[in-house]
Amino acid sequence: MSEIRKHYFLPEYCIIAEGRAKRPSEFAAETGGAEPETRPTHCAFCAGSEEKTPPAGSVYKEGRIFADTKEKRVRKWDFRCFQNLFPALSPIPAFSELSGGEGGSSPGFGFHEVIVESPVHGKKLSDFSAAELSELMQVYRDRVCHYRAHENIRYVSLFKNSGGAAGASLDHPHSQLLALPLLPPLLKTELQAIGNEEKCPYCILLEKEKESTRFIRENRECVAFTPYCSKSPFEVWILPKKHVNYLGDCSKEILSGLGEMIGYVLNSYGKVLGNPAYNYMFYQLFDAPEYHLNLRLLPRISLVAGFELNTGIYINTVSPERAASYLRGDKLPEE
Amino acid sequence: MSEIRKHYFLPEYCIIAEGRAKRPSEFAAETGGAEPETRPTHCAFCAGSEEKTPPAGSVYKEGRIFADTKEKRVRKWDFRCFQNLFPALSPIPAFSELSGGEGGSSPGFGFHEVIVESPVHGKKLSDFSAAELSELMQVYRDRVCHYRAHENIRYVSLFKNSGGAAGASLDHPHSQLLALPLLPPLLKTELQAIGNEEKCPYCILLEKEKESTRFIRENRECVAFTPYCSKSPFEVWILPKKHVNYLGDCSKEILSGLGEMIGYVLNSYGKVLGNPAYNYMFYQLFDAPEYHLNLRLLPRISLVAGFELNTGIYINTVSPERAASYLRGDKLPEE
Repeated sequence: MSEIRKHYFLPEYCIIAEGRAKRPSEFAAETGGAEPETRPTHCAFCAGSEEKTPPAGSVYKEGRIFADTKEKRVRKWDFRCFQNLFPALSPIPAFSELSGGEGGSSPGFGFHEVIVESPVHGKKLSDFSAAELSELMQVYRDRVCHYRAHENIRYVSLFKNSGGAAGASLDHPHSQLLALPLLPPLLKTELQAIGNEEKCPYCILLEKEKESTRFIRENRECVAFTPYCSKSPFEVWILPKKHVNYLGDCSKEILSGLGEMIGYVLNSYGKVLGNPAYNYMFYQLFDAPEYHLNLRLLPRISLVAGFELNTGIYINTVSPERAASYLRGDKLPEE
Repeated sequence: MSEIRKHYFLPEYCIIAEGRAKRPSEFAAETGGAEPETRPTHCAFCAGSEEKTPPAGSVYKEGRIFADTKEKRVRKWDFRCFQNLFPALSPIPAFSELSGGEGGSSPGFGFHEVIVESPVHGKKLSDFSAAELSELMQVYRDRVCHYRAHENIRYVSLFKNSGGAAGASLDHPHSQLLALPLLPPLLKTELQAIGNEEKCPYCILLEKEKESTRFIRENRECVAFTPYCSKSPFEVWILPKKHVNYLGDCSKEILSGLGEMIGYVLNSYGKVLGNPAYNYMFYQLFDAPEYHLNLRLLPRISLVAGFELNTGIYINTVSPERAASYLRGDKLPEE
């Protein structure tokens, strides 16, 4: 029998319906496992092709930060951040806020940045060392803080699309950042709900999930678990144990803890699901100390269809309890 | 330059960013055009395989309604409605409402029905005659009214997934219906927003869109247009001109008008996008006369990625004005 579950503190629901479930090995068969990783000759994100991208405003190299000029690009870098060549938003000068009324429209003001995570084309985040992951988190923090300081920026969306099914159009490892002139509806709704609570609901659920069957793993700084009302199979949340509201608020230790945990979860996805396409997204609010930064990972092994589009309720064929047991390594995908 | 747009009356946004656009012919190339339509020997939805499904509670045949028994299945039918063999929700006897509190859970009470639209495996809705489409709408109305009468049912979700990319696991033409014990969050939010308006916002936007560059087509009963804040390329809304809140409120004329318009839009999708996978969903509320029934069609030619998952804001690379001009036939896909 299936089960209807409600989100921890939002009016969101999912239906856990395992009668419709596939075994994890079947997901792996469908996702087709690893994609070819030979370097195409035309990849603009590869070392040596720096001229093919806009000049990078931040180039990380041996722990220091440099900048390209139009004339000269920095070589032998570790991470490289530049404006997207096809930006969804652009830094136009005359920006006015969205009209609140019907059919409101405003120019697409904002920033759209690419963060290239490695000079090596075929490198996967799950193969990064702990030090490399920690460095990437520091890059993330720098870039979020950079845009946070901009006038008219209300939210910084930081995410990674990996694999075609997750919306990545290039398979060189990279993340993206969009700095927005408005607070997105999803975060606004969360913030309103949190405002009605006495204590941070994330702090509460963190303590609960540490003891639950949905617990995956913890390190000194973070906890990873599958959320009670998981919208998709194998959705994972990573939360810092300390209440921090955005990356700028994170110590180097927390950043390292986050990076290490991302590495663990991506490795588990690889073992259980055969290197699926995935997204991860940072949920954070630099202007709201009551918010609790969290990171959500989503392997793209199921599709949103008519029912989800119609209702906003998600049918999930793998219970988060079962998913957690696989990701902890209790069960092998063959079982 | 891109543009940030707000929904007609909800706090929802999209970013129209045509700089990132593909031409419609490129979408068509990606979707791969028509899938093979030979009948597999194992299809349970085909004429002659009636024993492979649960007994059908409603079998439409020459304008009359019959029912299967366990022993005897009705043959030579036009439409056939039965419980899904792998239901997401089931009619369990002891049902109690969801607890409103944190981590609420309830048994997966409800109904999950399949509506087979034709005995012929390869038949597409875009090839249906006006009379066949009208009949299908009548079947839809009957089934919605059937579940509406059930105790504890608060919403009936009626939708079609066509093609693998739209979540269809079988390619025999069929729709699905889920009868739910709760009002879904998306509809609840809409209803609250509508409650704050003096006049039905759908009635208002219908009049506006009839005169706009997003207008596609009208018949006596319905209007089709691309919504101002389209979340995906080529999203289409069909609205009855008369204010009706659910299918049970629709005259035979309105049903015929809806069916005819669905046929037109699916044909246009075929011409412009090369037979893409698509979803359509009915938004309707049988208990709320203030709601205005509407049907939304979505070709699955773009992917939701990290940004959309993070913010609830959709990046759309084809403006609804351009999409409407293609769907009206003003422009050819080659242009």
